[in-house]
Amino acid sequence: MNTLLLDSDDVDDCARLADVVDAVEEAFGAFERGDTQMPVKSYIELPRYDGDFRSMPAYLDTGEWDAAGIKWVNVHLNNPTEHDLPTVLGTMIYSDPETAFPLSIMDGTTLTMKRTGAAAAVATDYLAVEGASSLGLVGAGVQSYTQLEAIAEIRPIEEVVITDADDERVERFVDTYAEEFDVREGSISEAGQCDVLSTVTPVEEPIVGPDDVGEHTHVNAIGADAAGKHELADALLESATIVIDDYEQCTHSGEINVPYAEGVLTDDDIDAEIGELVVGAKSGRTPETGVTVFDSTGLAIQDVAAARVVYERARETDAGLEFDLVGVGDSVS
Amino acid sequence: MNTLLLDSDDVDDCARLADVVDAVEEAFGAFERGDTQMPVKSYIELPRYDGDFRSMPAYLDTGEWDAAGIKWVNVHLNNPTEHDLPTVLGTMIYSDPETAFPLSIMDGTTLTMKRTGAAAAVATDYLAVEGASSLGLVGAGVQSYTQLEAIAEIRPIEEVVITDADDERVERFVDTYAEEFDVREGSISEAGQCDVLSTVTPVEEPIVGPDDVGEHTHVNAIGADAAGKHELADALLESATIVIDDYEQCTHSGEINVPYAEGVLTDDDIDAEIGELVVGAKSGRTPETGVTVFDSTGLAIQDVAAARVVYERARETDAGLEFDLVGVGDSVS
Repeated sequence: MNTLLLDSDDVDDCARLADVVDAVEEAFGAFERGDTQMPVKSYIELPRYDGDFRSMPAYLDTGEWDAAGIKWVNVHLNNPTEHDLPTVLGTMIYSDPETAFPLSIMDGTTLTMKRTGAAAAVATDYLAVEGASSLGLVGAGVQSYTQLEAIAEIRPIEEVVITDADDERVERFVDTYAEEFDVREGSISEAGQCDVLSTVTPVEEPIVGPDDVGEHTHVNAIGADAAGKHELADALLESATIVIDDYEQCTHSGEINVPYAEGVLTDDDIDAEIGELVVGAKSGRTPETGVTVFDSTGLAIQDVAAARVVYERARETDAGLEFDLVGVGDSVS
Repeated sequence: MNTLLLDSDDVDDCARLADVVDAVEEAFGAFERGDTQMPVKSYIELPRYDGDFRSMPAYLDTGEWDAAGIKWVNVHLNNPTEHDLPTVLGTMIYSDPETAFPLSIMDGTTLTMKRTGAAAAVATDYLAVEGASSLGLVGAGVQSYTQLEAIAEIRPIEEVVITDADDERVERFVDTYAEEFDVREGSISEAGQCDVLSTVTPVEEPIVGPDDVGEHTHVNAIGADAAGKHELADALLESATIVIDDYEQCTHSGEINVPYAEGVLTDDDIDAEIGELVVGAKSGRTPETGVTVFDSTGLAIQDVAAARVVYERARETDAGLEFDLVGVGDSVS
């Protein structure tokens, strides 16, 4: 009985976004129904290395399938400049909940990008206008790619407007998608006038104001992942319909954490959790809805749900490397 | 830049007990000095499978070296009977604390046995009589093997007395060590009269009473790992010098948890943490010391310390399989 090892290319190949979007949507539904276990993220803080580790274990039961696993992930700010490594590195152990056998160990970095894009797509499906055909992107880093690819799975995106202070990044993004989409560089306001806007920057001072977005724009606020970070101006949040992924995480480290800590936003300003839209407890966009904001912090159940997609697809396609990690090869019937 | 994959045989080969005992002793010292981070174990409970998952992340800095990692481990009671798998399966991710790069992924099951034996050896070194030459073992499961092997590293063990309700287990143990030691089956009392006794059973009713042990016996109480479990009678604990590994874990799930919950034992009955002996803040055995008990629950820093030994040895001996999990092979200088 072997553990399947999947490197970043395997994960990229096997995490087909249409499937990951479905799995993440089911995970949000299970979360809302109380059929998940997600111990609070635990941190190891390493100030001497400007870094930290985070452990994200989770179990979910959608009714159709259940899955378990843990992602061990970090943020090490000096990695790119001092070690030629990404700031964030993730490793995922995907386990059989019935026996705890480690079915697969896979790169968690690519997995994180896929499941984050998928979460935005799920929110976009409930909150964007029906025929949304334009997508704005603020930030042209690695996350911008999976935002476009995932959202294009659920809306007929044709036009893409991207903005970033780094021209090279913009150029790279435009080159990548020039054949598939009508893609161009634009200002933040031009990006924000699109039907859908995803913000994927690590800023601590908001860069998108209320006048930067259209009357019915749906905004996926992806960048904020720690206390003190936010991308959207208070006035934009105050006038928008706000949907979060998880109350604890969003109020502590999500897009709303700063205005929430300052009392500018309160619990009354949080209109729904994404799981409530998935199970139908609350409605998504209606003709009356104006600007909507999805505050995405990223849940451990998204990783586990995405890992299941990757694992199942890898088994179908004989991807990856078999390895007898546990050493029970002979004893298993 | 590759991640080194180490299966259970690799871990067995590379976890040389003399080295693991030293590393675990250093880890206990770092713990006492406050140079460790060990977020509380988080559990995922799966009653439908009679199982659970536990995540055990840790970082430690001994002054000479630092190390980080996480063990993902479980207890699934039906595994042996229904799935031909061990009750406990562990997977360890051993990471570079400076960059978070996953240096190695290794079998955590074998690792757990080694680090548990090593912890008992460290305690035995401080608490057993100097020339201890006899070791009793209550329980002949997998843990009994590493108890003997680790303790024999730090005391001149010649005589071994083992007891277990399962005759086959006893026979297997005796056969394994017949050439190396004077090893025989005996009663619990005969095992307890040895200079050192290790108890490695999962019982919920104590099986070792005060008259079962010698006047100066050191007892390693290994078996209790959950609320409700204990192996030693209250009267034995009440008259013994008690050394624990960690206050929270021992009072909740260690050997002392039941009498502690009942008020039979209080904080005043806990004489030391093992780290205090290691750093010299409290003394180990003196001529006046009678029976001593080490309550070992197992700390995440033990796993990380043992993983470091395994990894360093594996690199020296070219053990294991290189795997480009993260996919940064080309970008690293």
